Amino acid sequence: MGRFMDVALSEAQAAASRGEVPIGAVVVKDGAIIARAGNETRALNDITAHAEILAIRRASQFLCDERLTGADLYVTLEPCTMCAAAISFARIRRLYYGAEDPKGGGVHHGARFYAQPTCHHAPEVYTGIGEVESAELLKEFFAKRR
Amino acid sequence: MGRFMDVALSEAQAAASRGEVPIGAVVVKDGAIIARAGNETRALNDITAHAEILAIRRASQFLCDERLTGADLYVTLEPCTMCAAAISFARIRRLYYGAEDPKGGGVHHGARFYAQPTCHHAPEVYTGIGEVESAELLKEFFAKRR
Repeated sequence: MGRFMDVALSEAQAAASRGEVPIGAVVVKDGAIIARAGNETRALNDITAHAEILAIRRASQFLCDERLTGADLYVTLEPCTMCAAAISFARIRRLYYGAEDPKGGGVHHGARFYAQPTCHHAPEVYTGIGEVESAELLKEFFAKRR
Repeated sequence: MGRFMDVALSEAQAAASRGEVPIGAVVVKDGAIIARAGNETRALNDITAHAEILAIRRASQFLCDERLTGADLYVTLEPCTMCAAAISFARIRRLYYGAEDPKGGGVHHGARFYAQPTCHHAPEVYTGIGEVESAELLKEFFAKRR
């Protein structure tokens, strides 16, 4: 699990070097990475181009299936509400995330989407892997922007 | 407002004819439609390709801006939680939706995203325009599929 989060962290780092908010994600199926992405909202002029959305979209292209049943998603930061819902729609089996996001998270904060009656599939959620590295990347990025 | 919802309804109808769940959306700025879309989750193999997400993405391309400040979005069904959050991120000014969606909606049901402390921009929300036509389209579509 640590090695998959390491790849997500390297995607986050790559995003930072492009001037994007440093968040990275990978989708894993049967022990192999089938998609990886960093944030690309600025490059794509697309506010929905969060790392998770791009990784899910790429994994669906790879599998030719809009549902990623049995796949796991690793992301460096707690998914926002938009991404939490997309992860549910894609039928992700397990969600592993690094740092918590009290201001924008939608899993353990705010909308807590997986606990809503309108959520029809909830992944198993595991937290804390890569938490320190992920938080550090974000802190550095926003400190530089100020 | 009715004429913009009519265009959203025609996008929903076009989606149905392609075998997609009949939901349509348009983005309006300064009195003109700048983007329109119907659901394309099947065609694109992309569970995130809801009408609202596609319309927002196309409007951002058109304006070369990931934020749609001052733009309004018309959609035939209450947005799901994913789309409700995307609408917030895009800084949509006013959201007009047709039918309510108690099972999957994220505006007035379930996550009620705009009422969450993790929501940092909430559009003004107007409901009921085109409600009957929108509900009828969905009912017909799901009746045929059974």
